Amino acid sequence: MSRILVDGHGGDSAPGVVIEALKRVHHEYAGKMTLGIVGQTDVLQPLLQAASLADAVQIVQASEIIDMCESPANALRRKKDSSMHVGARLVRDGEWDALVSAGNTGALMAISKLILKTMPGVDRPAIASMIPADGGSGKTLLLDAGANVDSSSEHLTQFAIMGSCYMQAAEGIASPRVGVLNIGSEDIKGTDVVKMAGASISNLDLNYVGNVEGTDLFGDDVDVVVCDGFVGNVALKTMEGVAHFLMGNLKRKLTGSLLAKAGMVLAMGAMRKLKARINPSEYNGAPLLGLNGMVVKSHGGADALGFSRAIEVAHREVESQLGTRIVEAMNTWLER
Amino acid sequence: MSRILVDGHGGDSAPGVVIEALKRVHHEYAGKMTLGIVGQTDVLQPLLQAASLADAVQIVQASEIIDMCESPANALRRKKDSSMHVGARLVRDGEWDALVSAGNTGALMAISKLILKTMPGVDRPAIASMIPADGGSGKTLLLDAGANVDSSSEHLTQFAIMGSCYMQAAEGIASPRVGVLNIGSEDIKGTDVVKMAGASISNLDLNYVGNVEGTDLFGDDVDVVVCDGFVGNVALKTMEGVAHFLMGNLKRKLTGSLLAKAGMVLAMGAMRKLKARINPSEYNGAPLLGLNGMVVKSHGGADALGFSRAIEVAHREVESQLGTRIVEAMNTWLER
Repeated sequence: MSRILVDGHGGDSAPGVVIEALKRVHHEYAGKMTLGIVGQTDVLQPLLQAASLADAVQIVQASEIIDMCESPANALRRKKDSSMHVGARLVRDGEWDALVSAGNTGALMAISKLILKTMPGVDRPAIASMIPADGGSGKTLLLDAGANVDSSSEHLTQFAIMGSCYMQAAEGIASPRVGVLNIGSEDIKGTDVVKMAGASISNLDLNYVGNVEGTDLFGDDVDVVVCDGFVGNVALKTMEGVAHFLMGNLKRKLTGSLLAKAGMVLAMGAMRKLKARINPSEYNGAPLLGLNGMVVKSHGGADALGFSRAIEVAHREVESQLGTRIVEAMNTWLER
Repeated sequence: MSRILVDGHGGDSAPGVVIEALKRVHHEYAGKMTLGIVGQTDVLQPLLQAASLADAVQIVQASEIIDMCESPANALRRKKDSSMHVGARLVRDGEWDALVSAGNTGALMAISKLILKTMPGVDRPAIASMIPADGGSGKTLLLDAGANVDSSSEHLTQFAIMGSCYMQAAEGIASPRVGVLNIGSEDIKGTDVVKMAGASISNLDLNYVGNVEGTDLFGDDVDVVVCDGFVGNVALKTMEGVAHFLMGNLKRKLTGSLLAKAGMVLAMGAMRKLKARINPSEYNGAPLLGLNGMVVKSHGGADALGFSRAIEVAHREVESQLGTRIVEAMNTWLER
């Protein structure tokens, strides 16, 4: 039984979407999760009651709300009774197993880091983002997706260990293939940092497949791709941009003529399947890895399905004892 | 009348594709371009004759060929009579206006840099890549696309000046909007290098629009996006990967059922239009900016249409006197 606490005030459509997601998860995972919501009781209580969740979801009081655009430093120092602060403290104290929030990413990272601290051997936590891919598992884990703006080869090595543990534990891939994101497949390519990271990861007891390129993210040659947070963030947002551009153009072209429109009606089922395949909601829920406690970031614009996926990510992390696994893997690395 | 010399031995399907492209350009631009091909005369002569181009295209002899996978350092030092070396020397000596090659990118950059040297004020040349976008001009110029793996804020500033000149001269955009690729739109975001670059570019006489993100590359808010070559290369390859993934999935879904197949037949015209819109051939031809002479890199896998687009890029650069414009802009910057 996992105990998952969600941030009632994070995300563009909070708390509405959060409550809807809780309802969805409560029905699907009855008896498998203990659910809680952290935030302003007077706001959340009536909403839970209206959704018939008053008995199913525990409310944890927190008086302050962190804005989506607030500076992380400000949120960290000035709003110590925010839903994120209270949630992270309860995870630290073992009262809840994981915190899920769709709020301000920088603030969530800063607060989680301050309160939960990094695991032994981990210098910096990373945000891990799942992306759709062809082949076996149908997904690739990219980290860091933006927690850090410049990473050393040591950091990338730690990301590789954590990412591999994650895919093993939470996604059940026996021997995840790990690659370093680079601008060519040859060892001589790239910056000194990625070259050194490659050399260091290849010495670990991981299934290291060498350098991979942006094109490989969506194929079936790699399960975990490590990179600097700046590069990872640009890659993810570029991906989002292209998908939007292509689907928008396709829609315009398909509704441009009567014949094409008729074709689209016939092909509707296929189009729907494609949309589901690349639906960002399906891949929502980015774990913050490397902390002494589990925190999952949901996309700020996620809908109820998306937010519920983020809760499921947290659930799988808890059930598979991801934390213990990463600690063990880091210890093995430190003892080498 | 521009004088364009093409590398007869660069690219995955050379010299066949190169000859086909010359034929296409010769017909479209009769009287507007003087065309030449550099490479092994005994190989190229019969092909030109077979394509009825013997009178239209001048052959320039070069005895050596640089492999696509050869190390740039090796190519640079050991193959001094390669088609790239000979071509770059003739551009330097003013006998030809521009060299177009689909060969080994690293070798082309290294050889061009050694022979043509960088312009005054330019520390490092950049590869500029055009990508499709919604809105006005329908394209965005991204640089550096991979010539350098780590760039200082000074380098990014130089890229901004060169990119802006390019979009003005070769694409006719009066006041190109210039942005810095970052992981957020706020000034406080990103690495020190991008923050300093932003500050320095905002002081120039350019239409600077601030930080842009990966999602903005395909929109209508920016014309020139500057970034480090590592980041630019990852963004471009990620773009390629997503497009391939999406179109592949769409095709599979659309041919999966009889109904969807029927729909696709009806929507065929629209699908073709979309394909043309995102056809990488249409956007082929990446100028190497910042050298004392024009060099355009064609994609190694470009078809004849793609290679001919790269020749057109070179033609537009020459006609618009891009070189002089960049030199003037750099001088203005240096004199500040």
